[in-house]
Amino acid sequence: MDNFVLDPILLNALREDIGSGDLTTESCVPADKKIRGTFIAKADGLLCGVDVVNRVFALIGGDVALQWLKHEGSRVAEGDRIALIAGNARAILKGERTALNLLQHMSGIATATAAAVAAVPDTCAIADTRKTMPGLRVLEKYAVRTGGGANHRFNLADGVLIKDNHIAAAGGIKPAVAAARRRVPHTVKIEVETSNLNEVTQALEAGADIIMLDNMDVAEMAGAVALIGGRALTEASGNMGEKDLASVAAAGVDIISIGALTHSVRALDISLKLDIETQPV
Amino acid sequence: MDNFVLDPILLNALREDIGSGDLTTESCVPADKKIRGTFIAKADGLLCGVDVVNRVFALIGGDVALQWLKHEGSRVAEGDRIALIAGNARAILKGERTALNLLQHMSGIATATAAAVAAVPDTCAIADTRKTMPGLRVLEKYAVRTGGGANHRFNLADGVLIKDNHIAAAGGIKPAVAAARRRVPHTVKIEVETSNLNEVTQALEAGADIIMLDNMDVAEMAGAVALIGGRALTEASGNMGEKDLASVAAAGVDIISIGALTHSVRALDISLKLDIETQPV
Amino acid sequence: MDNFVLDPILLNALREDIGSGDLTTESCVPADKKIRGTFIAKADGLLCGVDVVNRVFALIGGDVALQWLKHEGSRVAEGDRIALIAGNARAILKGERTALNLLQHMSGIATATAAAVAAVPDTCAIADTRKTMPGLRVLEKYAVRTGGGANHRFNLADGVLIKDNHIAAAGGIKPAVAAARRRVPHTVKIEVETSNLNEVTQALEAGADIIMLDNMDVAEMAGAVALIGGRALTEASGNMGEKDLASVAAAGVDIISIGALTHSVRALDISLKLDIETQPV
Amino acid sequence: MDNFVLDPILLNALREDIGSGDLTTESCVPADKKIRGTFIAKADGLLCGVDVVNRVFALIGGDVALQWLKHEGSRVAEGDRIALIAGNARAILKGERTALNLLQHMSGIATATAAAVAAVPDTCAIADTRKTMPGLRVLEKYAVRTGGGANHRFNLADGVLIKDNHIAAAGGIKPAVAAARRRVPHTVKIEVETSNLNEVTQALEAGADIIMLDNMDVAEMAGAVALIGGRALTEASGNMGEKDLASVAAAGVDIISIGALTHSVRALDISLKLDIETQPV
Amino acid sequence: MDNFVLDPILLNALREDIGSGDLTTESCVPADKKIRGTFIAKADGLLCGVDVVNRVFALIGGDVALQWLKHEGSRVAEGDRIALIAGNARAILKGERTALNLLQHMSGIATATAAAVAAVPDTCAIADTRKTMPGLRVLEKYAVRTGGGANHRFNLADGVLIKDNHIAAAGGIKPAVAAARRRVPHTVKIEVETSNLNEVTQALEAGADIIMLDNMDVAEMAGAVALIGGRALTEASGNMGEKDLASVAAAGVDIISIGALTHSVRALDISLKLDIETQPV
Amino acid sequence: MDNFVLDPILLNALREDIGSGDLTTESCVPADKKIRGTFIAKADGLLCGVDVVNRVFALIGGDVALQWLKHEGSRVAEGDRIALIAGNARAILKGERTALNLLQHMSGIATATAAAVAAVPDTCAIADTRKTMPGLRVLEKYAVRTGGGANHRFNLADGVLIKDNHIAAAGGIKPAVAAARRRVPHTVKIEVETSNLNEVTQALEAGADIIMLDNMDVAEMAGAVALIGGRALTEASGNMGEKDLASVAAAGVDIISIGALTHSVRALDISLKLDIETQPV
Repeated sequence: MDNFVLDPILLNALREDIGSGDLTTESCVPADKKIRGTFIAKADGLLCGVDVVNRVFALIGGDVALQWLKHEGSRVAEGDRIALIAGNARAILKGERTALNLLQHMSGIATATAAAVAAVPDTCAIADTRKTMPGLRVLEKYAVRTGGGANHRFNLADGVLIKDNHIAAAGGIKPAVAAARRRVPHTVKIEVETSNLNEVTQALEAGADIIMLDNMDVAEMAGAVALIGGRALTEASGNMGEKDLASVAAAGVDIISIGALTHSVRALDISLKLDIETQPV
Repeated sequence: MDNFVLDPILLNALREDIGSGDLTTESCVPADKKIRGTFIAKADGLLCGVDVVNRVFALIGGDVALQWLKHEGSRVAEGDRIALIAGNARAILKGERTALNLLQHMSGIATATAAAVAAVPDTCAIADTRKTMPGLRVLEKYAVRTGGGANHRFNLADGVLIKDNHIAAAGGIKPAVAAARRRVPHTVKIEVETSNLNEVTQALEAGADIIMLDNMDVAEMAGAVALIGGRALTEASGNMGEKDLASVAAAGVDIISIGALTHSVRALDISLKLDIETQPV
Repeated sequence: MDNFVLDPILLNALREDIGSGDLTTESCVPADKKIRGTFIAKADGLLCGVDVVNRVFALIGGDVALQWLKHEGSRVAEGDRIALIAGNARAILKGERTALNLLQHMSGIATATAAAVAAVPDTCAIADTRKTMPGLRVLEKYAVRTGGGANHRFNLADGVLIKDNHIAAAGGIKPAVAAARRRVPHTVKIEVETSNLNEVTQALEAGADIIMLDNMDVAEMAGAVALIGGRALTEASGNMGEKDLASVAAAGVDIISIGALTHSVRALDISLKLDIETQPV
Repeated sequence: MDNFVLDPILLNALREDIGSGDLTTESCVPADKKIRGTFIAKADGLLCGVDVVNRVFALIGGDVALQWLKHEGSRVAEGDRIALIAGNARAILKGERTALNLLQHMSGIATATAAAVAAVPDTCAIADTRKTMPGLRVLEKYAVRTGGGANHRFNLADGVLIKDNHIAAAGGIKPAVAAARRRVPHTVKIEVETSNLNEVTQALEAGADIIMLDNMDVAEMAGAVALIGGRALTEASGNMGEKDLASVAAAGVDIISIGALTHSVRALDISLKLDIETQPV
Repeated sequence: MDNFVLDPILLNALREDIGSGDLTTESCVPADKKIRGTFIAKADGLLCGVDVVNRVFALIGGDVALQWLKHEGSRVAEGDRIALIAGNARAILKGERTALNLLQHMSGIATATAAAVAAVPDTCAIADTRKTMPGLRVLEKYAVRTGGGANHRFNLADGVLIKDNHIAAAGGIKPAVAAARRRVPHTVKIEVETSNLNEVTQALEAGADIIMLDNMDVAEMAGAVALIGGRALTEASGNMGEKDLASVAAAGVDIISIGALTHSVRALDISLKLDIETQPV
Repeated sequence: MDNFVLDPILLNALREDIGSGDLTTESCVPADKKIRGTFIAKADGLLCGVDVVNRVFALIGGDVALQWLKHEGSRVAEGDRIALIAGNARAILKGERTALNLLQHMSGIATATAAAVAAVPDTCAIADTRKTMPGLRVLEKYAVRTGGGANHRFNLADGVLIKDNHIAAAGGIKPAVAAARRRVPHTVKIEVETSNLNEVTQALEAGADIIMLDNMDVAEMAGAVALIGGRALTEASGNMGEKDLASVAAAGVDIISIGALTHSVRALDISLKLDIETQPV
C-alpha cells in the first residue's frame, strides 16, 4: 500500500488516540527510555496488517525497529510469536493501541475471509461488498485479498450495479443497461441485480456482464446459472454470511459476495507484550 | 453531536463510497426523480445513529426528509419500521450505503452494550475502551452511551492509566502516580492497573483514584474490592467480553470495561426498502 | 456533480485566487452594492460548467442569482448571451475569475470533444485519457462527456491497462492478464496495449476484454480489428490529436482515445460584462 | 519551490491518479522489480518542471534516482534526452503519469512564454494573468518565469487592479485610487485599467503606479505611452495572445500581459521510455 | 471577511476548544433549552470582531441570533453593552469561549493600534509587521486596520523587504534591488532596510520604493527623511512599541511599523453574561 | 511534543508566512548560499520552544543545524546566547519569522507563568485556562507547564466545570453534578463553580471533586477553604492576573487559575543575528 494512501488514515488514527499527548507515558517514562516487546497471537488466524503496523511506528518516529517472524497473510496459531519490536519507549507505548487496533481488525477480516474461501471450491470466488467501516475501506478490502478473497467494486464510481430502483427509474432492465453503457467508461463491466429467472433472462438479453442472483435459494440459483450458461459472470448475494457457502457454491455461481466479512468483524486477538529497560542503557 | 465533529467523518465516508460520482444512479435515474422508502429492522436490537443518518442526507443535499418512527436509543424488534425517508432519488441512493453502514454499526454497538448492561446490577457500570475503529471513536463511544454504557477515557490525552511498563519506567507505583499527579490537569483522575493484591495495596497507598483489576479471577477481584473498601473506584478488565458479567459484577467492582463492545461488533441488520416514483410527479 | 466533490476543488480555487481578501474590491466597492451582468460567448463552442459556476457563487455567498439562457452542453455562437447574473457586487467581482477560468476551460474541452465526435461515425467513441490537469480530472472528464465523448478509466485504481513494461515484468501477455484477473475486482475489464498483430493475437488468447492498438497506422489497425473480430473492444491510441480521425475510425475501432482533449486545451472565450449599480438601491 | 508549497498539490495529484492503488502494476510487477528509463523530448521547447518531477518521485518513495541531462529552463530539441530515471519499478510506473502531466504542462507554458519574450525587445516584459488552472497557479506562474516572462500579481490579495466597475462603484478613478491607497499595504502598487486617453489622464492625476491600456489599438497605446511619459508603468492588455506582439511593444509599453500563456496551454510533448529489468537482479 | 477565509480558522478553533463534545453542557443542559445574554465591555477600548463572532455561532448552528448595539470599530467604555445574544443554550455555551477569545484578542489589537494612531499626526501611518500569532494573521491584520492602522505586507510572497543578509548575499544594495526588480511582479514595491545615511543613499540610488530606517535615533531618522526628500516612502522600525511615537513621527517618516501591536497583545476585557431560561418555553 | 501534533500547526504557520515563496530571498540569495547565526536573549526570561524551533527548520529542509546553548525551561538573561544555527541561507531566512514568533510567544508565557509560580508557596499551583489563542492551545499549555505551572482541562471534552447556567438548567447544583457524573467518563473529575459559601456547601454535598471559588475576596476564599476542609480541591478564579497572588494563596486554595497567562501575553524579546557567507564555500 502506498504511503500517500495510508498516511491520512494513520495520522487521523494517531491524532484521535493520542490527542495533544499521552499524559501517562509523558509523565512516567523518560524521553530516552528504550523498550522491547513481542507481538503474540492469542488465537488462531491469518495475519494481516504488517505494512500498516510498520507505517504507524514510522509516522510516530523514535527509531522503532520491527522484525516480523510471520509474514503477511500467513497462518498464526495461538501462542505464536508474530513480530519483535524495539526502540524508544514513548514512541512504542503511544503507537501500541493504534497498531493493534488495525492489526487485529485486518487480521480478523483476513481470517474470516480465509474460512469462507476454504468452504468453497476454487472455481468460486469469495468477494467483499461496500458494507465497510467508513474511512477504512481500503484497508478492509486489502485484508479480504490477503485472506484469499476477491474485491468487489471499490465504490460507486468504479463499478456499475443496477438494482431494482435503477431499473424502475430507467423503465426496465434493458434501458437501464443501455443507459449505463452510454455513460460509463468502457473499462467497467455492468452488473445487474436479479431476483428471479425472468429478470435473469432480461439481464442476459440486455447484455449484462455480471448477473447478481439476490436472495435466491440454491435451487433457483442453480437454475439461473444454467440459464446464463457462461454468457455472464454470476454472483450470489443476500445474507451470505449466514448461508452454507458450500451449497451456494454448488449452485455453480462464480462469486459469492459477503457483507459480513467487513460489517461484522471479530478482531483476531493479538497482544503486544512489552518490557521496558529498567537498567541504564 | 456537533456538525463540526460529524462532518469530517461523514464527508470522508461519502467521498470514499461515492468517489467522483455514482455511475449507476447518474446513468439510470433522472436528476429530478423522487423516491421514498422505509428503514426496517431485520433483527431485534437498540437503535443508534439517528443524527448521523440525518446529517448524511443533509450533506448530500437533495431535499431529503426523514421521519423517525423510533427514537434514538429505543428498542426495535425484527420487522419494525424505524423511519420513513423521501426526497430526490439520486441523493437517497447515493447516501444509502454510508447511512446504513453507520446506522447498523452504531446500533450493533448499542445493542451489545445494552445486553451487557442488562447482565449486571445498576451498581456496576459497563464501559468501553480505546479498542475502537480508527477514525470512528467518537461515534462508537456515543453508541456505547446510547446503549446505557459508560465511556472510559476518550484518548491518551484526557485520562491517565498507569500500566506495568509505566510503573517499571517510573520505578514503582508510588513514583509513577506522583509523576502523573505533577504533570496532568487537576481535573483528571489517575488510574493504576494492578494484577494482584500487592499492587492494589501499593496503588491505594499511592493515592490512585481508580484501580483497575486486570485479568484477575472473580475471587481475587472480590478480595481487591474488599481491600480497597471504597477508597478508590474499581474497574474489572481483561477479556471481559468472554466472561460471565454477572459474576464479575458480583465481586463488587464499580466498572467493567469491555473491549469487544467496539473491537468485534456485530452490525444490527437494518434494511432500507425504497420505491422510486415511476409515475410523473 | 455532487457538492462534496466540487467543494474541495472550488474552495481551493477561491482561496488561491482571493487569498486573504480582494484588496481592490474591498476598498472601492461598498459592502451592500449590487451588480448585474451577462456571460457572453466571444467564440463558437459548446457550453460546459453551469453547475460549477453556480456552485462558485453559492460558496462565496452574497445572494448571487444566476439565470442560464443556454443550458449545459448546448451550442453557443459568438455573441450569444449565455447567462444573466445579479447580486452583491463584492461577491460577484470576487468569484468572476474563478468562475470564468473553469467555465472557459471546461467549455474548451467540451468544444474540442464535440469536434472529434463529429469527425467519426456513431459506431466509434471518442474517449479521454489520464493526461489531465492535476486536481481537475473530475471536471475535465465531465467536460468530455458533456462534449459527447466517453470516459476512459478515471485512474489507476479503477481500470487495468497492461502496457509493455507490465508485460515484461509478468513474463508475457498471458501471465500478465492472468495476474490482473486474479487481483482486480470482477467488475473491471482488462485492457492490453499492443503494437503489432502478434501482440494482438496474444492478447486475444489471454482473454483481454479490450485491446489497445497503440501507434499503429490505419492499415495495421484495420488488420487488427479484423483479426479480433468482435471478441474484444478495440481502442486506437497514440497521438490521436494529430491524426485524421475519420480514417482512424474507418479502420473499425470501437474507441479512439485522445490525450490532447485535456492536455492541450484551448479555452473557449467567454466574457462576463458587468454593470454596477451606481444609483442608490 | 518549497516542499510545503509543492506537497499539497502533488499529493492531491497522486491521490487523484492512483486512488486506492495501481491495479495493473500491483498485479503484474513484483514489489522488488527495478526499472530504468529516459525522458525524451518529442518536440522542440523549453524545459520546466525539474523540481516538480523530483518531488513527485520523492513523495512516492521507492529509491527513485533522477539524473537530469538538461537543466531547468534550457532549450530542448525533438529527440533530446532530458533525464535518466532508475529505481523501483512500481514507484516509477505509479508516478509516471503525474510527473509527465506536470512536466509537459509547465514546459508548454515556458515554451510559449519564451516565444512571446523573443518577439519583443528587452525593454518590454511579457507577463501572465490570473487566467490560470485552478489549483496550479503557483506552478504556472513559476513556468512563466522560467520561460523568461514576468509575473503579474499572484491573486486579489497581493495587488490592486482597479477596473471599470470598481471605478463606477467608487465614483470615479480619483476616489477609487484614493480608497485603495488608504486600504492596501504601502508595499503594493496601484494599477488602473483604462480604455482611452481620457481615463489615462485621470489615472495619472490620481497617482496610479501602473496604467493598464486595455483593448486599445497600437496607435492609441502609443499615444497613451507618450501622454504618461514615464510617470507610471504601462501595461498592454486584451487578447494579447492573438496580437502581433512586436507591434504592441513598439508602442512603447513596459509590459504586455497575456492570458493565453496559461489559459490555453499546448503541452510540450515529452515521453518517458522505460525498460523493466527482466533479468534477476 | 470571506467565509472561505474565516471558516478554516474558526472550525479549527471550535474543534480545539470543544473536541468530541462539551461534557458539562451536554450533561446538564437539555437539548432544546434557550438562553439569552449580553456582551459587556469591562474596560475601555475599540470593538473588533463582530463578523468573527457572528460566524462562530453560525458554524455551531442552533439558531443563535446576535444583535449588535455597538458597531465594528466603535469605541466602547467599561460597562457598555456591546451585543445581545439569544438562542439554543447548548450552542451558545459551546461557542462562548471561542467567540470571546477572538473578540477580546482582536479588540485588544484594535485598541492598541488606535492608541498609537492617536499619538501621531495624520501624515504618519501606524503599520503592523509579520510578528503575528501563527494561524491568526488575517484576523490580526484586520484588527490593525479596524484600529485605524495600516497593513504592512501580508507575507514573504506579497512584498519585498531587502535586509542586511539579502544585501550581503547579493553583493550590495544596488544588485539586491536589481535582482528583486527582475523577479517580482511589477505590482510590488521594493523596500530596503537601512541603518545609516550611507545605506539610505545607496537605497535611493538603487531606486528603492520604500526605505526602512531601522533602529535609528530620531535625529538620524530626520536626517534620512531630509536626504530622501520624498523620492521614496520612509518607514521607521525597531522596537517602536517602546518608543515615543510622537517624536518618531516628528522626524517626518511616512510610516511607523510596530511589532508589539500583534506580538504582545493585551486582550480587551469583554464578558458575556448569560441567563438560561429556567421556565418552560 | 509529537510531530503529528506540531506539523499541522507549523505547516499552517509556514504557509501563512511564506505563501507561494519568499520574493526577497529567492531573488537576492543564491540557492546554495550558507548562513550561520545566533539566537540572543534581549530580555530576561524563561526559554520555551526548543522543539518547535527545531521542527520549523526540519519542515523547511535545507540541512539546518541547531545547537542549543540553553535548554528548554532554563532562565536566560538579556544578552545570553541561546542557540547557534547554521545551514542553507534561504531555508533559515524563510523559517526565521515563524520560529521567532513561536519562540518569543511561548517564552513569554513561560516567563509570566514562572513569575506567578514564584509568587506563591509550593502548596499552591498556578494553572492556565481556556483563554488561549485559537489554534495554539497545545503550545500555550505546554509553555505554561514549562514555566512551572499546571494545566487546567484542555477543552470542553476532557473536563467538567459546572457554572451558573449549567446549574440553572439542571435545576440546582446537586442535580447538575449528578447529571455530569452519569454522562462523563469515570476518569474525569467534576468541578463546580461557586460564588458564595452557600454554593460551596451545596457543591460539597453534591460530591464535587473540585470547587472553584469565583470572584471571591480573600477572606471569603479562606472561609470556603475552611468549610471544605480538604474534601475537594479548591481553585481560585476571577481576574487573578490582576490580584496579589501571595495573598490569594494565603487563603489556602490548592490552585489559582489565571487567564492572562495566555490571553495577554508579552512576547519575550529574542533576536536572531545572522551572517551570510559572502565568501565562496
